[in-house]
This record gives sequence, C-alpha cells and structure tokens, in this order.
Amino acid sequence: MIVGAGSGNAVVDERFSHLDVAVIDEGPFGGTCLNRGCIPSKMLVHVADLIDTIRDAGRFGVEARPGRVDWPAVRERVFGRLDQEAAEGEQGRRSSANVDVFKGRARFTGDRTLTVGTGADTVTVRGEQVVVAVGSRPAVPPPVRDGGLPYETSDTVMRLDRPPRHLAVLGGGYIAAELAHVFHAAGSRITVIEQEDTLLPAQDETVAAACTAIASERYDVRTGAALTRVEGEPGRLRLVLDDGPAVEADTLLVAVGRTLNSDRIDAGRAGIDLHDDGRIVVDAFQRTSAAGVFALGDVSTPFPLKHVANREAHVVAHNLLHPDAPIRTSHEAVPAAVFTHPQIAQVGRTEQQCRQEGLDYAVSVRRFADTAYGWALEDTTGFCKVLADRRTGLLLGAHILGPQAASLIQPLVIAMSLDIKALDLARSPLWIHPAPTEVVSNALRDLDLGDRKP
Amino acid sequence: MIVGAGSGNAVVDERFSHLDVAVIDEGPFGGTCLNRGCIPSKMLVHVADLIDTIRDAGRFGVEARPGRVDWPAVRERVFGRLDQEAAEGEQGRRSSANVDVFKGRARFTGDRTLTVGTGADTVTVRGEQVVVAVGSRPAVPPPVRDGGLPYETSDTVMRLDRPPRHLAVLGGGYIAAELAHVFHAAGSRITVIEQEDTLLPAQDETVAAACTAIASERYDVRTGAALTRVEGEPGRLRLVLDDGPAVEADTLLVAVGRTLNSDRIDAGRAGIDLHDDGRIVVDAFQRTSAAGVFALGDVSTPFPLKHVANREAHVVAHNLLHPDAPIRTSHEAVPAAVFTHPQIAQVGRTEQQCRQEGLDYAVSVRRFADTAYGWALEDTTGFCKVLADRRTGLLLGAHILGPQAASLIQPLVIAMSLDIKALDLARSPLWIHPAPTEVVSNALRDLDLGDRKP
Repeated sequence: MIVGAGSGNAVVDERFSHLDVAVIDEGPFGGTCLNRGCIPSKMLVHVADLIDTIRDAGRFGVEARPGRVDWPAVRERVFGRLDQEAAEGEQGRRSSANVDVFKGRARFTGDRTLTVGTGADTVTVRGEQVVVAVGSRPAVPPPVRDGGLPYETSDTVMRLDRPPRHLAVLGGGYIAAELAHVFHAAGSRITVIEQEDTLLPAQDETVAAACTAIASERYDVRTGAALTRVEGEPGRLRLVLDDGPAVEADTLLVAVGRTLNSDRIDAGRAGIDLHDDGRIVVDAFQRTSAAGVFALGDVSTPFPLKHVANREAHVVAHNLLHPDAPIRTSHEAVPAAVFTHPQIAQVGRTEQQCRQEGLDYAVSVRRFADTAYGWALEDTTGFCKVLADRRTGLLLGAHILGPQAASLIQPLVIAMSLDIKALDLARSPLWIHPAPTEVVSNALRDLDLGDRKP
Repeated sequence: MIVGAGSGNAVVDERFSHLDVAVIDEGPFGGTCLNRGCIPSKMLVHVADLIDTIRDAGRFGVEARPGRVDWPAVRERVFGRLDQEAAEGEQGRRSSANVDVFKGRARFTGDRTLTVGTGADTVTVRGEQVVVAVGSRPAVPPPVRDGGLPYETSDTVMRLDRPPRHLAVLGGGYIAAELAHVFHAAGSRITVIEQEDTLLPAQDETVAAACTAIASERYDVRTGAALTRVEGEPGRLRLVLDDGPAVEADTLLVAVGRTLNSDRIDAGRAGIDLHDDGRIVVDAFQRTSAAGVFALGDVSTPFPLKHVANREAHVVAHNLLHPDAPIRTSHEAVPAAVFTHPQIAQVGRTEQQCRQEGLDYAVSVRRFADTAYGWALEDTTGFCKVLADRRTGLLLGAHILGPQAASLIQPLVIAMSLDIKALDLARSPLWIHPAPTEVVSNALRDLDLGDRKP
C-alpha cells in the first residue's frame, strides 16, 4: 500500500510484480515535484533566465529588443506537458495488472489499515506493507489565513492566467527566491517580505548577504519585517507590517515554508509516531514505529528535497523486498540548489555552522570574475566558497552563487560523499581551461591547509 | 631561461626569486591561450551563444527581436581586455628585480645558449636551466600557402574589422567548430570543408555524427572533400575541391591543425631531440634529451591543451627547484571541450577506440530530453554517453554534447582520475534534482555492468 503517488510511487517497479499493490493519492500522480514544485518552477525559471539574458544582451554588443512575454503560452507549454506526464503516470499504474489506484485522501483507522475518500465513497484498504509518502503543503500563517482575502501559494501561482502587476512575496526562502525571479522576469513588480535580516537566511552568510544585495537591486526587499495583517479587497491588498510602511499589491504569494501532511492521516491510529515538528519518526532503514510501515520524502525526512526522496524510495523498495537484509539511507553530503537569479548551490556546512561548532576550518572564496570563463560571462557577482577541515583536509561545505551553480557544485558533492580531500580534488583531476569549473578548482587550490605538496 | 611567455611564463613564481630569470618571446605575453586561442574564442563564443539564445526565444513564449551585432564593440570588449592583460603580464615581469625580458624569436646556438632577435639587435642569452615552451602556430596547407590569395587563421580572424559575408572554413576540427559558431552568430554565411566523412572526426562517433547533422542545418557542410586550389581575387575567392562544386567566399579561414614551433628554434644545436611529428622528446619529468633543458606545452605534449600545459608547468617548476626529487606529469584522464553549438566535452576513450582495442565495455547514452532540466531547456539534441569496463566497473570514457557540457564532464573526469567505479559515482553521491547533472547520473545508472547492488 503506497500512500502518496509522488516519490512513493517510485518505490514500485517490476520487482513488485508478484505483489498486489495499491497506490493512493488525492491529487495528480507525480506529487509536488512534478505538479507544483521542482519541475514546473525550473521550467519557468529557465524562461526567466532567458528573459534576463535578453535584457542584458546590450552589455555584450548584441542589440536585442525584448518584447512581450506570452505568459499563457509559457504556462501552457509547462503545464500542458506536466499535466500529461501526471495523467500518463496514473494511467500507467491503472493499466498494471497488479496495481489498484485509489483517488482520495487517506486516513489510518488502525494497524496497516486506512480509508480513502469521504462519505458514501469511502473505501477501506489494508496492506501487509505500507509506505507513507504523503508529503507536505504550503504553510499559511495566521495573518493571511485569518484575513479572508485571496492569496496564492506555490500550488497555485504558477498557473495564474497572467503575471500580477505587483506581486508581494511573503517569505524570503528558496521558493520565494525562485518564484520572485519568475514573475519579475514576466513583468511583475516584486516586493519581498522576510522576517529575518537577510533573504535566504538558511544559506551560508556570504551567500545570503550577496543574494540580499542583488535582490534589492531588482525588488523592493523588506527584511526584518513581519506581516501583521492583510487589509483591502481582492486585487487591492494592503499588507501591514510590524516595521516600515505597508505594502500595496494586487497579488500575495505566501512562501513561508511547508506544513507536513502527517497531520491529515491519523498516524496515531496506525501506531506511527511523529516528531514534535510533525515528521514521521523513521530509523535509518526508513521504518516507522509501526511494524510493516515505512515512510519517505517530505513527511519524514530531515531533507525535504526530491533527490533525497528518490534515494529514500530506493531504500524503501529494497527493504520491502529484503526485510532481513535491509539497507540504510545516507543523509551525508546532501546538496541543494536554488534556481533564482543568480543560481545558488550548496552542500554541507555553512561558515556560520563551522564557527558555531568551533571547528578549525580554512575558507577560500574565488570569484567567477577572476576566471577566464567569468570574463566571457562578464560576471560581476558570482563566487565559489569552500570550507575545509584543517586537521583532515576534508571539505566541510561548499557554496556557489553564479551561473551553472547547480552543476558546478557536483564535484564538491562527490568529494564530500567519497571523502576526497579538498587539495586532492583540486590537483589530481584536470579541470578544463577555460571552463566554468575553474572557479571551483581555484577556490579549492587557495585553501590554506598547510599543505604545499604538489 | 624561459623560452615562450605563454604557459612557460607560469613556471616562474616567488619560489624563483633567488634566481636570475630570463623570459623570452617574440609575441605578447600570455601566448596562444590569452591572445589568439582559448580565451578570446570563449569570450566570442559566449556572445554567439547569447545570439542563438535570443534567436531561439520564441520557442519559449518570449518575444525577442535580435537586432544588429555590434562586432567592433564585441571585438573591442574582448581584445581591449586581453591586450591589456598581456601588456600587464609583460610589465609585471619587467618590473621584477630578478627577471629580464627579451622580445624576439629565439634560436639555440649551443648547449643552453640561444640568440634572440635578428641582425644588429641579436642578443645571446645563456642559462643554467632552460624551459622550452615555444608552442605552436596554425598550419597552412599547400593549396592555400601557394595560392597567393589572402586567408585568415585563428591568429587573425577574431580581430577582423567586420564579420565576413561568407566565410569558408577549411577544416572541421575543434577550432573550425568554435569559430564557425562565432561567425555564424555574427551574421556570416558559413561553408565548412572537411576531408573526413564527419566534422570533428577525432570525437566519439556518436558525437561526430550528431555534430555533423546539427552543423548541416546551419552551415553548408562539405565533408569528404579536399581543397585542391584557391582561385579568384581578394574578397572573391573560389575554393576548388576534389569532390563537389567549388565554394565561393569572400573570406577563407584555415583551421586544419597546428604546426609546432620546434622547427624554428634550432633544437638540434642544443642537443634537444624531436619526435617524428615535431614534438620535443620529454620524459615523465618534462626533461628533454639535453641536460638542464625542460619542455612543456604544445611543443612537447601529447595533449595540446592549456589545462595540460598548466599542469606540465607546475611539474617543471617543481623539478627546476628540486632536481633530486622530481615529480612526474600524469596524462591520465585528460578532458577537453569544444565550445561550439552545441557544446561538447570528452574524457578518455571514444567508443571506436574501445572497439578497436577489443575491450569488454558497456555503453549507455542518455538524452537531456529525458531529464527534467532537459524539459526546461526544451533540448532536442543533447546527450551524455558513458563507456565502462565490464570487468573493472571503471569508466573508459565519457562524451557529452549539449548545454554546459564542459562543466558536466567534470564528475566523470574526477571518477577517471581517482578510479571511482561508474556505478559508485552514480549511487554514492547525491545528484541534485532537477539539475543538468542528472543526465550524467542517469547515463551512469543505465550502464549494464552486471551489478544490481544498491
């Protein structure tokens, strides 16, 4: 019984063909990632990157007159494809002889037993083995929820009929950063409201400071300010802050974090324990406190990222089939990217974490502008920052802000995952000249690790 | 005595401050890479990529009217910067107390002794240790050389006053591929003439075939055709081929390979042996057959690439200072990129090499179009191809054609350099979803290596 047709659905493959499988979800197949998250946002961000590139072309001696963005065409291209993918995913399961699909919200009623749907259509389903992968949803804070005025979330904003004239973005995290970039490029005026003193406050301090400065040149950025209430009427909202003037906007995007859907499944009736923060408790084998019940993805993981959920799904699939020889999930060296302007990627510790942990660390920051490819890009803001342990020579963390950051981080992820020392990573493999990767090798080479061997 | 102020100049740093150093070159400091090669071509290619991006924007729902390319502004931006870098590089050396700079062509007259310049200005210079790094120059085949009509090479074409109306490119290798892309974007009509049956014939066969097909949609591509003579007059050239109709063009770019400058230094007088192909013979420590004489870079290496020359310069610097504890150059896992449209990168063997060597190999090809980021890019032609040894599980080679190829190859370079098995590379580190890197991890995962362990 697979509860959640996002990453949960990835558990089932041909190895399960001898089993009766139920896949249960109230929404379209593919979950948040395919329908409301990673994928549509990246498809829209690519369009935003393209628009920024065109607007910036004059700097390179190329005359380009950016005209209208055909938002309905953009939206149709994205969701026409993704909605079809979701439908085909569901249809594929429905056409499998050994799989039953149940559409509706699932609630546990007892040990490995749940109901799907409500009222007369309620169905009871029971399985020997259960996978809970019910994910998360956008959190909506009280001033918005209680205001009674319309608001968007990442679930809805990407499907708007037209870009807002003035979009107020509540929250300064990664979802806010990506969607502000999308709508800024599409022509919306943007105001970002963030309680902390910087945008992307969970990032390394150098990255957060750079992002905040860059965003402030494009958007009206209100850091250190909390929303106290929403006034006005639909299309003419007035967001009252605890500090500074109110924000007038036609559309409000709420992007302050995500609420786990563990509160909707009556987990307690199935003997499934939760952490205080709502995450389902799982061990390293993805097993919950209830026998035969596994969990994965946003609803249980410390790292709510699709690539982590995919790995957890891989572990769950193995452990369902081989309960006597289970494998463990590794949450070491988890990378993440923010596809905003400029792109950001990270792995491991931030510098503030290194400092707080009292680590003896070396830090090196190299700018794209000091590499040959950076000259080609005329980049002025990008950098690669690496942190390494002076005692072991191993990387503690890495942070890249700039073009291709999500690709450029991968060598550093590999090094952290496979315990390759920072200076060995710089010196043993060759790094193509002049490729964007040189900013990484140069940053590594500059680490002062008291090691001068060739 | 450093003969050649390109990569040779990189040998000398603060560790040499106790020595009298001579740096000798007939051209500007920075050598081919900075003045006529990697760097200006990449700066121009970025502009070409930008123009292609703008021309393609309609596909994404973005209206953009690409206007004029201000070629003089493009050229000035590139060479204004690079000429200044070169001048500053020379000035930096001239201002060093322990460095003398000699400008002129160097010829050996005996053991570690050479003359610089000609006629009355000839100077004789002698050193205890010598580094020969005189590089290479564009090869010009007899039909062009003997034709007496004007032609361009990579040394000159990037500094043209305006893009040609119709540029005939003789040669289908990497220099031809990059410069054809540059001038096509700048508005030139392009004809490419290549003797072999495909463009980029040294690439993996899948890459060469794809490139040829893609180029044929943009250029007049004449494969399997050799130039027999050049007729006409300046600005109205007629290139007669041994197969097919003649090519009429206003400008001819010769890009058929490079000639080593070892033929200009009277190497024999210094006891410096050459290979039959003109390369200076060096051992793994970069030592030539003449005592105290080292060589590096294009003039001696099997891999005429700047990142290889940099590594060789690093080895030479060490070995000059520590002749009793010399280090070796590794030429394992040498990557290379071609910054054309689409970008190409490679490391290790091609599939045809694997076949010719009779290796028991697995091959996997994954398309960008089958990854989420490929959906965002709407990519239709890109792929990652990986080749692995079935017995060892190690990579034999990797080939990427598509956006960011020069960055995406780096994880594969690292794996080959550090003997990381292909499936471990796929499975141990996480790969960000949905980032361009997924095309690499997916290709690795698909390798049929008879290994199903998680």
